[in-house]
Amino acid sequence: MTPRAPFVHRLRVRYHECDAQGRVFNAHYFAYFDLALTELWRQAFGSYGEMVRAGHDVVVAEATARFRGAARFDDEVDVSLSIARLGDTSMTSDVEVRRGDELLVEGRMVHVWVDAQTYEKRSIPDDARARLAPYAT
Amino acid sequence: MTPRAPFVHRLRVRYHECDAQGRVFNAHYFAYFDLALTELWRQAFGSYGEMVRAGHDVVVAEATARFRGAARFDDEVDVSLSIARLGDTSMTSDVEVRRGDELLVEGRMVHVWVDAQTYEKRSIPDDARARLAPYAT
Amino acid sequence: MTPRAPFVHRLRVRYHECDAQGRVFNAHYFAYFDLALTELWRQAFGSYGEMVRAGHDVVVAEATARFRGAARFDDEVDVSLSIARLGDTSMTSDVEVRRGDELLVEGRMVHVWVDAQTYEKRSIPDDARARLAPYAT
Amino acid sequence: MTPRAPFVHRLRVRYHECDAQGRVFNAHYFAYFDLALTELWRQAFGSYGEMVRAGHDVVVAEATARFRGAARFDDEVDVSLSIARLGDTSMTSDVEVRRGDELLVEGRMVHVWVDAQTYEKRSIPDDARARLAPYAT
Repeated sequence: MTPRAPFVHRLRVRYHECDAQGRVFNAHYFAYFDLALTELWRQAFGSYGEMVRAGHDVVVAEATARFRGAARFDDEVDVSLSIARLGDTSMTSDVEVRRGDELLVEGRMVHVWVDAQTYEKRSIPDDARARLAPYAT
Repeated sequence: MTPRAPFVHRLRVRYHECDAQGRVFNAHYFAYFDLALTELWRQAFGSYGEMVRAGHDVVVAEATARFRGAARFDDEVDVSLSIARLGDTSMTSDVEVRRGDELLVEGRMVHVWVDAQTYEKRSIPDDARARLAPYAT
Repeated sequence: MTPRAPFVHRLRVRYHECDAQGRVFNAHYFAYFDLALTELWRQAFGSYGEMVRAGHDVVVAEATARFRGAARFDDEVDVSLSIARLGDTSMTSDVEVRRGDELLVEGRMVHVWVDAQTYEKRSIPDDARARLAPYAT
Repeated sequence: MTPRAPFVHRLRVRYHECDAQGRVFNAHYFAYFDLALTELWRQAFGSYGEMVRAGHDVVVAEATARFRGAARFDDEVDVSLSIARLGDTSMTSDVEVRRGDELLVEGRMVHVWVDAQTYEKRSIPDDARARLAPYAT
């Protein structure tokens, strides 16, 4: 069994996130990934808003998910997130969605660091690197 | 049978708008109402964007729906919109969602006219009144 | 100040629930109402699933919201729910969304009790009435 | 410039699909992919419903997107879909989202063919292969 990533956000599947097959519609998992990242920002920077006020922002460049099982309405799932790579301007995160020990979804996101005003690509500043280091695998 | 409202927007129900009962989740109908209004803005003002650039904006103050039947995945439904009242600062719209002749949802929205910069309430300007007059019942 | 309803569910506003104005899009509040009701079902019946397995189900017949203020991304809001009326076949709930002491949205929902198999309207059974009594105003 | 895939579905970006940055939230692109596939099913099988009634169903096994540009509210975008590979039980689709000539998103989905009743994996039947052949690259 692969070790859990260091950051875990638990959430409960909402009724309207499930489709006529009773399972979470695939696009919603990408929203779950984003929710977990928001909580990681909170832990690392105070909040996403504080991060932006400090001049940082990110845009998503890539998102991938492999679906191995289906979460269902009212399930509690754990969305775990670890930073697989901090490049000069980009951050690659690995995501797993589990219900108990069962791995439901494996995901990966790539975010690019941008200036919060101009949205131009920029190097990840050192203080952000320091704050993100604890989540690196 | 009540006459149709003057403005009609047709849309097709999306898979992920339907819940485990196979029916459109109630909150999505309010998004349908908004879609129809966006199309009315397009017809009356060019687009919502042009309306905002002309200094107008609106915020929703009230929304109501009575559900009489259920739209299902892949159904084409007609969302009709008529302006029931243009007050000094507010606009009341009646909405109906139909599948063919079958009335599925009756709704009502109240929007308040605001300044596009400050979001402060303002009287609906005369040129906006003139553009909206064709949709009044 | 009106007294709080007896049942309160706290949730955090998600990034993708906010529109380009930075505020929760109106339709999502109706999803919040539904979330609070799901938690009330959990407290009263064990879960919505157990309620359905016991033969009960509900369909929403009416939903209304008056918007007084706007929740924003990352806000924590309290969605309170009280049962204003338990009729023969229908249940009327009053909802309030607050951020701290600030009332943002006032809502009302009417649900109709149906058979979990046939979706035919039925009288609210006595055991369900007993379970719901604590939430009545 | 890469040639367009054979199947194209045009849609208009909805207000509530855009985030506080004014851009389509990343998860919604995966819903767009699904919408385009639904329209391909319509063209190939009559509709998704008819496909299911004929005993076919699919579950998504993988979804990926690379974001190169951002669609915005009221944009009309073309979602093109081509079948890159029809394996024994799986179908790989390439997706592109364009605004005019501008490529905004490149995606890929893998679907697995299942029995419409049991959800067990099955070989893609010959008549389905024949119906999907026109969309293969």
